[in-house]
Amino acid sequence: MRRKIKPPAWQHVAAARRSLIESKIPPEWRVPEELLKRKNLVDLPRTCGIMTEEELSITESSAVEIVSAIQANKISAVDTTRAFCKRAAIAHQATNCLAEIHFEEALLRAGELDEYMRVHGKPKGMLHGLPVSVKEHIKMKNTTATAGLIAWASEVSDEDALIVRTFREQGAIFYVKTTNPQTLMAIETDSNLFGRTLNPHNTNLTCGGSTGGEGALLAMRGSVLGIGTDIGGSIRVPSAFNGVYGFKPSIGRMPHSGLSGLSDGMQNIIGVIGPLALSLEDIELFCVAALKNDPWKYEPALLDIPWKREVDIPKKLKVGIMWSDGVVQPHPPITRALKQVVAELQNQGHTIIDWNPQLHHSIYDVTNEAYFLDGGAEYHQTLKDGNEPPVPIVKWLLDEKGKHHYTIEESWRVNRDLEKLRTMYALQWNNHDVDAIICPANPSVASVHDESRYWGYTSVWNALDYPAVIFPVSRVERTDIWKNFPPLAAPFCPMDAWSRDLYTDSEGPLRYEGAPISLQIVGRRFQGESVLRITKHVVDILSHKAPETSQD
Amino acid sequence: MRRKIKPPAWQHVAAARRSLIESKIPPEWRVPEELLKRKNLVDLPRTCGIMTEEELSITESSAVEIVSAIQANKISAVDTTRAFCKRAAIAHQATNCLAEIHFEEALLRAGELDEYMRVHGKPKGMLHGLPVSVKEHIKMKNTTATAGLIAWASEVSDEDALIVRTFREQGAIFYVKTTNPQTLMAIETDSNLFGRTLNPHNTNLTCGGSTGGEGALLAMRGSVLGIGTDIGGSIRVPSAFNGVYGFKPSIGRMPHSGLSGLSDGMQNIIGVIGPLALSLEDIELFCVAALKNDPWKYEPALLDIPWKREVDIPKKLKVGIMWSDGVVQPHPPITRALKQVVAELQNQGHTIIDWNPQLHHSIYDVTNEAYFLDGGAEYHQTLKDGNEPPVPIVKWLLDEKGKHHYTIEESWRVNRDLEKLRTMYALQWNNHDVDAIICPANPSVASVHDESRYWGYTSVWNALDYPAVIFPVSRVERTDIWKNFPPLAAPFCPMDAWSRDLYTDSEGPLRYEGAPISLQIVGRRFQGESVLRITKHVVDILSHKAPETSQD
Repeated sequence: MRRKIKPPAWQHVAAARRSLIESKIPPEWRVPEELLKRKNLVDLPRTCGIMTEEELSITESSAVEIVSAIQANKISAVDTTRAFCKRAAIAHQATNCLAEIHFEEALLRAGELDEYMRVHGKPKGMLHGLPVSVKEHIKMKNTTATAGLIAWASEVSDEDALIVRTFREQGAIFYVKTTNPQTLMAIETDSNLFGRTLNPHNTNLTCGGSTGGEGALLAMRGSVLGIGTDIGGSIRVPSAFNGVYGFKPSIGRMPHSGLSGLSDGMQNIIGVIGPLALSLEDIELFCVAALKNDPWKYEPALLDIPWKREVDIPKKLKVGIMWSDGVVQPHPPITRALKQVVAELQNQGHTIIDWNPQLHHSIYDVTNEAYFLDGGAEYHQTLKDGNEPPVPIVKWLLDEKGKHHYTIEESWRVNRDLEKLRTMYALQWNNHDVDAIICPANPSVASVHDESRYWGYTSVWNALDYPAVIFPVSRVERTDIWKNFPPLAAPFCPMDAWSRDLYTDSEGPLRYEGAPISLQIVGRRFQGESVLRITKHVVDILSHKAPETSQD
Repeated sequence: MRRKIKPPAWQHVAAARRSLIESKIPPEWRVPEELLKRKNLVDLPRTCGIMTEEELSITESSAVEIVSAIQANKISAVDTTRAFCKRAAIAHQATNCLAEIHFEEALLRAGELDEYMRVHGKPKGMLHGLPVSVKEHIKMKNTTATAGLIAWASEVSDEDALIVRTFREQGAIFYVKTTNPQTLMAIETDSNLFGRTLNPHNTNLTCGGSTGGEGALLAMRGSVLGIGTDIGGSIRVPSAFNGVYGFKPSIGRMPHSGLSGLSDGMQNIIGVIGPLALSLEDIELFCVAALKNDPWKYEPALLDIPWKREVDIPKKLKVGIMWSDGVVQPHPPITRALKQVVAELQNQGHTIIDWNPQLHHSIYDVTNEAYFLDGGAEYHQTLKDGNEPPVPIVKWLLDEKGKHHYTIEESWRVNRDLEKLRTMYALQWNNHDVDAIICPANPSVASVHDESRYWGYTSVWNALDYPAVIFPVSRVERTDIWKNFPPLAAPFCPMDAWSRDLYTDSEGPLRYEGAPISLQIVGRRFQGESVLRITKHVVDILSHKAPETSQD
């Protein structure tokens, strides 16, 4: 009989991984300990004295500006990459947002790309020289994709995910992988393997999840373009919590093959890949680049439709405002932001109607069934394989949702229920014929750690497969109290009551101090291009720029 | 305790249904018994003396010709409908292809449409006045959709399927529903409820299935446009066996909601709606009409892409020929037709390569797993509910395939296997970069009853979601023997050996006398428009018409 080799304690695996990450940060990029003690660390790259003015300037440009500057020989890929490596290293020290660091390889690659430009007189592709950050569970050759699991800590990918391959072919440079939570199935980013990722606007708050490392990294401009994934809000919650842009396209639009994760092969609810960015132009750049090389020839689940840059939207929009989803009502800052958007849109002559959330509770419930058809069995087993306990937010999740192991026939019932709800939603949309819905991204701004328990504002759009964009509106203020923005109704359910108590008039504004307030714009299935364009219009109005008209 | 009411014997339910159908055929449309004794009944409508010359002429026109003649006031909707009702009644007496008859309602509706044209001076839609036949399990308000099951014999639909509603809005007239087999899961058409549907080219042979009633009805021109469904070959096998055109589009292109059937909610392999017709122009008419009213607004699973009438295909095609799928080798008539097509295409300067079927056996096996994830449990239960035995072909199927009840996790494995095979197939296609594949539709021409046991030539394209068109090439001849068209290899499997023995050099050509020989053209996912255009090109070449070039 063979003796079973006892696996190392998870603490050892985690310690080894974290010291590997630390070891990749050069001493001269180390931030003095005392600078890390503030709650708000967003300005750290500017104030810590590590970055040059040129490096600050590069990293404070948009991806579109960066690729065009490189193309015009105004900056080099090497300088650009070094700037982002530095800034990412600083962001990591502030928030613990990196899961892997590949600065050396990135600088080598940047050198090759500069050489390519010199020799060929043209860029390698539309992302030539642009550093792009990648969520940890997206496979990249010779890196790990652990999904935050100790059991998978040494799983090295032998191939690039299709999006990584495509971006590589377009000249992108990969320099970091960013943290995601244990099992991926949480809207915070905490794991035994990587530890907790903090929100740079207020380190008492979560960066959101599961694309949480990206959210924190982008908020500090340690990256201007990140690749995330979203099956229930995993791009949008961190985008909202960190005040950056995030886009969840419809299924089948963006390359999606090559992810590690549990429930592999589950198709009752399907996730997508999408961008986090600091401008809408960069969100569009991502979408165009992702479809540049006909990815549908390599991933048969994709639609063979290039990203349309030109789409028309009506001069006068009709927008549905969903003040609450009828399950968990938003906190005062969110309501204030919604009111502000409504006022500005009406000011510009757009039509606003109240959107009835009557189907949301049912969709939320059935979607949760679809996420956990095996009753969490594989989650429990994989944690056991890694000899690790669940982190608090995952423990709560498994206790709450992992109660029933479905039969095949029960899973068909779930599918039928989802299809019925999708049809009812389509008919509601037909009846009101809006151009978009604007709604919260979450009942809360960035939660205090371990308090993110409700994802209904985002997961509903996964179930419906409607494209959705997150955009920043404002920031929590002292006057954001229930007295000024009262709830619409008595609590709808225990979760609503619990959520309401998290934000009190006496403590709320302080507890969430500095947190960005973001909202979500949603369009019909496959209308991602229009939703982006409508968001651009709304954002222009909010920033009091003259919005481009559809004729431009 | 309540006494359980014993359900009526299935024989009574069936007898009641069949006499109801019979009762809807007026005495003057009855064919003399002696005329029904021949094996080949395709010419019966022309020879039985029941139809006028004008009625023969109308029913021998294409759907495109008919709608344009009605629109030009050359014929009326009433005359058109009466002609098709008559011819369908004759076809039914020959083949037992009708499951419901609605002649009176159809003639009333035709009258209304004629009146509409008179009053408004324009047609109601692009199918104005065209009689369209409908497979039985497609729901139509106030008719039954039994899926060939005694248990569901009195299930009356309270709504139209979306395709029926759309066609109705476009002015189509519904006059018959056509037979499908018990459980739908067979490529023959036999049920205790409706009995067996025969092949009008040779009544010893099956009409195929599951859209078998349509196949037989169209072969006799009792309809020129039929609505079928296909999850493994159910449009294409009857099209091939009856020598008519049939088209299986990709998933999400044609309205699909509103079907009755077992395994409702199963999404591991997804069926589609598509046309059976007597010309490729009519196949296209179907596709354009089906998407005319933005069905994606009512059925959220649909893509929002209208049917493109204009597509370019290369002047010189590169076509892969798949002589056999490496599982069950085709009988001599099929091989002869393939050779003929190859010779004609090469003659026109098109490039032909042999297509390697290396992935087909694996795809066939995994697809069969996906069809029967519940181990046939619901099939058995529903037969039991109806107190009926399985018909022979369904009994064979359940004994053969319904062996294992899958867990959720096993179904995820099936999904993963399918996705892997789809990816491998896409890469094979990339490597050879063909414009289309031409292959058999079945190893056999129309089988002798109860001998249709292999659907791998059709189901593989469902698993891959590639669009596929069936087109007629020829007819079985005396010289179609193994000696002239030897198999490529020793039998690949017991099914191959069994299939080979069905066709002997001494008996084969006689056993399958009169059977049409059809082939299948397949394109990449979503490229339905191109596949139709390439098929048109090939068919023009075969009929020695000058093919239209892409510039036309």
